[in-house]
Amino acid sequence: MCELLGMNANVPTDICFSFAGLMRRGGATGPHRDGWGIALYEGKGCRTFHDPKPSAHSEIARFIREYPIKSRIVICHIRRANRGRIALENTHPFTRELWGRSWSFAHNGQLRGIKKWPNAHFRPIGTTDSEHAFCWLMDQLRERWQDAPPQRALYLCLAELCGTLAEHGVFNVLLSDSKCLYCFCSTNLVWLTRRAPFQAATLIDEDLTVDFRKETTPHDIVTVIATRALTRDERWVSVERRKFVAFQGGELAFG
Amino acid sequence: MCELLGMNANVPTDICFSFAGLMRRGGATGPHRDGWGIALYEGKGCRTFHDPKPSAHSEIARFIREYPIKSRIVICHIRRANRGRIALENTHPFTRELWGRSWSFAHNGQLRGIKKWPNAHFRPIGTTDSEHAFCWLMDQLRERWQDAPPQRALYLCLAELCGTLAEHGVFNVLLSDSKCLYCFCSTNLVWLTRRAPFQAATLIDEDLTVDFRKETTPHDIVTVIATRALTRDERWVSVERRKFVAFQGGELAFG
Repeated sequence: MCELLGMNANVPTDICFSFAGLMRRGGATGPHRDGWGIALYEGKGCRTFHDPKPSAHSEIARFIREYPIKSRIVICHIRRANRGRIALENTHPFTRELWGRSWSFAHNGQLRGIKKWPNAHFRPIGTTDSEHAFCWLMDQLRERWQDAPPQRALYLCLAELCGTLAEHGVFNVLLSDSKCLYCFCSTNLVWLTRRAPFQAATLIDEDLTVDFRKETTPHDIVTVIATRALTRDERWVSVERRKFVAFQGGELAFG
Repeated sequence: MCELLGMNANVPTDICFSFAGLMRRGGATGPHRDGWGIALYEGKGCRTFHDPKPSAHSEIARFIREYPIKSRIVICHIRRANRGRIALENTHPFTRELWGRSWSFAHNGQLRGIKKWPNAHFRPIGTTDSEHAFCWLMDQLRERWQDAPPQRALYLCLAELCGTLAEHGVFNVLLSDSKCLYCFCSTNLVWLTRRAPFQAATLIDEDLTVDFRKETTPHDIVTVIATRALTRDERWVSVERRKFVAFQGGELAFG
């Protein structure tokens, strides 16, 4: 299995603290040594960094950890390969353009038989079941709407499509179209929202504490979501199984 | 205008030396201060790094310059904005998936009226004429072939499509589908192939010399192509105007 980390904030915010904890699980405190990747949105634009090397020993991961790239939406994934060999093209998050938006997708779990599902327009570049499922999902959206639909219609459709995919295995997913952070919980997703009055927090995976009072303004709202809690002294809330949620502006917008 | 740099090699090769020269033109020895980007292929996979900051002062550029990522195909671009504001989504190279291949595109020049051309399936995320042209080109390929055609048919089609676009302005382009490096010269493209016996070479933009005898094996073949020569002591060959060329395995494969 893999691990997921997502962030959504109302102001551009860096992911350095949470990223530091997650990256330790990639070959140090966890067994997820088959690569890692991150997608960071700045407005409509999206940067991605991928490395098929274990994140705990990745030069690129060290760079990201120390260089504060500020984003409103971040999706991060560390991989333990089950389907698809260790290779750059099999490293999440996967990205595609649809309706002039940059979409990113990262998946924790396995889906049975998904590779037999047809891909019409969007085709996998690598060999993972995850990328195949993402391409299928993009195809379904495109068949339904030539252009981006109203936000609520998109929530409902994504919830339905994720539910369909989750009938075939474990499907914990983080997804974004640069507008919202969409999350589907198949088995494990926990989240919390940080807002004023801010507190300090300490990572589970590394002896690192951040005092958010020094890092934030009183108007900042930041939600973090992950397959497992990242800090030991904050209250993480579980997403119900088979539930789809969406975050926008740092807060729960749907679910 | 912008500057382009491409590389194609028969073995995974790092771009550090050429990249060092090009990056100096982004705000130090040249006026291209409106961002930069690079796409590096590893097999079917492609990494991209983008920064809307001037490359001469970019932390990410410094990282790439010092961290030898080895690739067979590289496309790099530094930008001087003419159409489209300075923003991540307007930073080349642009990428799309077609036929299960990762395509990257970087453009030097301007095209008149291109934004009125229809985009069917592939849509721009940003507001540059370059990304619009790339989306049009991808649409044309997709309409012609549902799956990847034989290599020679693809060369001929790309040459024709690039010729059509070049009728509307300046269109120096580097393009890849992970198999080949395709190049169209509208006004300026120069290239050279390095192979045994290797020599030393010195950058034009920075006092930096590399002795390729120490960096290579006798079997290495590496082609570098750019809008302007990068070294002062090697023989760069100009691509004819309105000519399309393609490189594979480090050597000229078409043109």
